[in-house]
Amino acid sequence: MKLLYEGKAKIVYELDENRCIIYFKDTATAFDATKKAEIQGKGTVNNALSSILFALLEDSGIKTHFIKKLSDREMLVWKARRFDVEVVVRNVAAGSLCRRLGLDEGKRLKRPLLELFYKNDKLHDPLICREHLFLLGLMKDSELKEVRRIALRVNSILKNFFEDHGLLLVDFKLEFGLLPDRSVGVIDEISPDTCRLWDMKTGEKLDKDRFRFDLGDLMEGYRRILQRVQGG
Amino acid sequence: MKLLYEGKAKIVYELDENRCIIYFKDTATAFDATKKAEIQGKGTVNNALSSILFALLEDSGIKTHFIKKLSDREMLVWKARRFDVEVVVRNVAAGSLCRRLGLDEGKRLKRPLLELFYKNDKLHDPLICREHLFLLGLMKDSELKEVRRIALRVNSILKNFFEDHGLLLVDFKLEFGLLPDRSVGVIDEISPDTCRLWDMKTGEKLDKDRFRFDLGDLMEGYRRILQRVQGG
Repeated sequence: MKLLYEGKAKIVYELDENRCIIYFKDTATAFDATKKAEIQGKGTVNNALSSILFALLEDSGIKTHFIKKLSDREMLVWKARRFDVEVVVRNVAAGSLCRRLGLDEGKRLKRPLLELFYKNDKLHDPLICREHLFLLGLMKDSELKEVRRIALRVNSILKNFFEDHGLLLVDFKLEFGLLPDRSVGVIDEISPDTCRLWDMKTGEKLDKDRFRFDLGDLMEGYRRILQRVQGG
Repeated sequence: MKLLYEGKAKIVYELDENRCIIYFKDTATAFDATKKAEIQGKGTVNNALSSILFALLEDSGIKTHFIKKLSDREMLVWKARRFDVEVVVRNVAAGSLCRRLGLDEGKRLKRPLLELFYKNDKLHDPLICREHLFLLGLMKDSELKEVRRIALRVNSILKNFFEDHGLLLVDFKLEFGLLPDRSVGVIDEISPDTCRLWDMKTGEKLDKDRFRFDLGDLMEGYRRILQRVQGG
């Protein structure tokens, strides 16, 4: 199979004209990959969680690239033309939002906040507004409208789902692309690498912030999320 | 008179309930005031240019805080409740836009680009989008609409005016406030401290970038702008 793309946490292979296989690696990175480690089992858990969450979204009528989980580390997906944009949806202030705007971590936002970032490692993924999207030619207006609509709907679905399992969805990052049928769909992964998830009772952080800020064993947090979501 | 506010380049005194006097200092600062100098005559030229440009806007039906020039360094203005937002309008890529998005300086933008920054020294005036404005409670939706409308109209007026005098208006920063009659108006100053102006023929930079990047005598550039604008 042809290697299409190797990112920090995943490798994408082309299976045929319309389908790809995503391979989940064990590599964890943070702060523009200045912090990096191999964490055994991360790829397996992220593939398991992503597969569960993509299936949930598909069941709720959201277009995604997900076809099925193939093995412990492999997911079968539709081939997509990726938009070079990271879409972040926030329910609670945390991370870069707090640093940028001087907000206190943990502040509940009155309504979900949607932010756009230009996916560009060299430029350190800068925040962009609607006008920059068009200036950079990253998306058309109609595509942005669809992306916003889907992202907010995904937030509502995931937030309720995690709450049912005792987890607070603080924020998360989505990527989007054009699927083979030309529709806009959610691509990439949805995992504790891309979602901030806090225990609803204790406030304990179970996501990648454990790795970023050395808050505890990463895999213990990830496995607890997987267990909760699987009803364990 | 009561001192209301002392900024990096100006002092604002309260004259009466509805009016203030702005005093233009000679201080020049750049890069969050880490670079600073006293430049004799800057205040005088900036007051002269601001007064000419505010009068031009008023004549074109734009609401501003400008009443009249009082003396070499003093301007009489309406008292305003300032929005803590800097509005930047760009016609040509330069400065932070190039650094943030990797654009080449001098690239003409297809349409004017309007950017918003949170006026907050501690946070280094971060870029914000529409949603952050509301999150931070900086402006109401109706006020933002009015600010955008005025800013783009000001760009069109100033761009044509400077072009008539051989100057390219690359970009500029505006501040806005609520005037005593509760309408949204342009406040602060409009000068080579807040506008990037290039000679249309030679491309020479005549504005504060001379100070920022040691490109030549600041006052020579500022005086050439004033002479051009006065038809000299």
